[in-house]
Amino acid sequence: MAKTALIMIEFQNDFLSEKGAMAGAGIWKRAKDSNVVANTKKVLEAARNKKIPIIHSPISFREGYPEVASTPFGLFKGAADANAFKKGTWGAEIVDELKPKEGEMVLDKRRLCAFCDSELAGLLKNLDVKELIITGFITNWCVEVTGRSAYDRGIKPIFAVDCMEALSEEEQKFAIEKIFPVLGDVKTSDEVIKAL
Amino acid sequence: MAKTALIMIEFQNDFLSEKGAMAGAGIWKRAKDSNVVANTKKVLEAARNKKIPIIHSPISFREGYPEVASTPFGLFKGAADANAFKKGTWGAEIVDELKPKEGEMVLDKRRLCAFCDSELAGLLKNLDVKELIITGFITNWCVEVTGRSAYDRGIKPIFAVDCMEALSEEEQKFAIEKIFPVLGDVKTSDEVIKAL
Amino acid sequence: MAKTALIMIEFQNDFLSEKGAMAGAGIWKRAKDSNVVANTKKVLEAARNKKIPIIHSPISFREGYPEVASTPFGLFKGAADANAFKKGTWGAEIVDELKPKEGEMVLDKRRLCAFCDSELAGLLKNLDVKELIITGFITNWCVEVTGRSAYDRGIKPIFAVDCMEALSEEEQKFAIEKIFPVLGDVKTSDEVIKAL
Amino acid sequence: MAKTALIMIEFQNDFLSEKGAMAGAGIWKRAKDSNVVANTKKVLEAARNKKIPIIHSPISFREGYPEVASTPFGLFKGAADANAFKKGTWGAEIVDELKPKEGEMVLDKRRLCAFCDSELAGLLKNLDVKELIITGFITNWCVEVTGRSAYDRGIKPIFAVDCMEALSEEEQKFAIEKIFPVLGDVKTSDEVIKAL
Repeated sequence: MAKTALIMIEFQNDFLSEKGAMAGAGIWKRAKDSNVVANTKKVLEAARNKKIPIIHSPISFREGYPEVASTPFGLFKGAADANAFKKGTWGAEIVDELKPKEGEMVLDKRRLCAFCDSELAGLLKNLDVKELIITGFITNWCVEVTGRSAYDRGIKPIFAVDCMEALSEEEQKFAIEKIFPVLGDVKTSDEVIKAL
Repeated sequence: MAKTALIMIEFQNDFLSEKGAMAGAGIWKRAKDSNVVANTKKVLEAARNKKIPIIHSPISFREGYPEVASTPFGLFKGAADANAFKKGTWGAEIVDELKPKEGEMVLDKRRLCAFCDSELAGLLKNLDVKELIITGFITNWCVEVTGRSAYDRGIKPIFAVDCMEALSEEEQKFAIEKIFPVLGDVKTSDEVIKAL
Repeated sequence: MAKTALIMIEFQNDFLSEKGAMAGAGIWKRAKDSNVVANTKKVLEAARNKKIPIIHSPISFREGYPEVASTPFGLFKGAADANAFKKGTWGAEIVDELKPKEGEMVLDKRRLCAFCDSELAGLLKNLDVKELIITGFITNWCVEVTGRSAYDRGIKPIFAVDCMEALSEEEQKFAIEKIFPVLGDVKTSDEVIKAL
Repeated sequence: MAKTALIMIEFQNDFLSEKGAMAGAGIWKRAKDSNVVANTKKVLEAARNKKIPIIHSPISFREGYPEVASTPFGLFKGAADANAFKKGTWGAEIVDELKPKEGEMVLDKRRLCAFCDSELAGLLKNLDVKELIITGFITNWCVEVTGRSAYDRGIKPIFAVDCMEALSEEEQKFAIEKIFPVLGDVKTSDEVIKAL
């Protein structure tokens, strides 16, 4: 049987709280309406019960945003301008409902793609992971590119589609219908849990 | 001024000829209708005139497809099943109109993303490239993920949108309207040439 | 002028204290005799004064050593068997004299080479670093391979040779005389400081 | 049983012929005296018989040496100044005795380390390789750093020590006695063949 791991991308206050630095983007509202945190919590608990490797992957930047100094445009500029996801702040913290337990892996993400410039590929190789359950934000940005990169590295992405949200219904739908099925499996949280 | 390079992704017979191994996908027909090769040739000639680094990036696989042995699903399975993009075959060759000239770089691509498991990032760093003009196939697959990865690596992608095609109008439009503008610049071939 | 950064590799209690988990290897004794910490402190202070990017790079492993699960032999096995460099323990902490100040970058190292499976290359690229002053432990292991990899990535290593130690005089001498001069510059701490 | 592959590093005319561009370094003479090519040929034939994956890894550079443009010092400067290892020339060709057969993988190397900026790690992962028999040149440069990097990636290096040479007896001996045993196994060609 293929070995499975769970990755949880950017479940942080800056995205998920009405008071977060990125609240203006409205992810918190859409995620609330679709119960993303509650759905993901069920998957997280099931993964804990089954002793599946769990990788919490919050994004964060150091003082002065040196990690994205060469990208003074696009999404990273937006984050830096909003003072978002700053290491050590409340906004960069993982939301209370999904806080890592001791022994669970936390992997600081600095890029859209969780594999880029990180230890993720090495870690998954060491753990002999062949399938990666992907949850988090934003569906068609960090989630999608992490899934695309997993595919490129021979790891089948399992997209838990009620554990993620996009900036609009159209974008959520496009990723789920046009992109994800070509890369791997598309499942609800219940289907993911049943298959564990 | 930011230093610019041009990358040309998968302008190969298997995609662009009616007799190519991937002809069933219909890329050849859509690309013909939208003059992708002719548009790209203009950009290529302009880049040659301006002495801008040119990177031809055809995808290819060795006998037995060992490069994708761990991905027996999705797009790579489709390519392997169709015996497509096999190194040394006519199908894997770059189309006549866009053949590399001596001194132009050819970089064998093995993944959806041209940066993944390749020398591309190192090469662009050495050449001090800050902006990458992206052309080729398929708009919302290899082209898009290469653009996403360029962004993650601090290189601004310039998408030459009449130098690429997708499997459907909907997918072409979605990439151009929803994804590319967030990552970098969206230009026609004429606009790209004017800015060189 | 080439932009310079300073990296400090594994200045941790497990190496540098008589009570550290790796004390048996004797690095603490050799480092004490050659004033490595004092010499490095001078370089660190000079780098702080000159506002040069400083990267503290301690090695650490999570509970269960999942990062090296696929390497159950050699140096990593030795570290795991000794329960060394465990994230969150006193042994994995940087020694008091060289503790990072707020705003200085800390990069958790998981491999012999500081570039392998880490954000280091991306970070140095963003900061436009062309020369890397290297200090720390062990001279012909983590220090040397990080210097070799810097070279491979177009970054000139500056080896501050009185800011590092090996397991024997022979190994220290071989690295300094036979390897380092071929890759970059070999300097004393005083020479490094003068050149800043 | 751990899956094994064989890598053959830089068995090229520029190193191994008296008329090669790097002949001045004397590798050809030392390799001749110690029968490196003949020893390696025996290992190669045994690997062919056992159907073990074989990776020929010659180093090469494109016109103008763009791959090392940012490293205008050290070994790469030496190679560029000598016009060595230029793609398409006789000097960059693999020596007749060890020419790749059809179906054997050829991986163009651009760095000292065969893993750096290449598809090697991905390829070995796909082939599920856990042990890598390493042969070639130069013992304490490209061979050693490739072995160090294999170790860092969870692959056990098997150094076939009579299938490689250094620039001096001292360097050959140091690598074999002080470095290789800490990273993996040290074997003669006969021992490697017996263990296949």
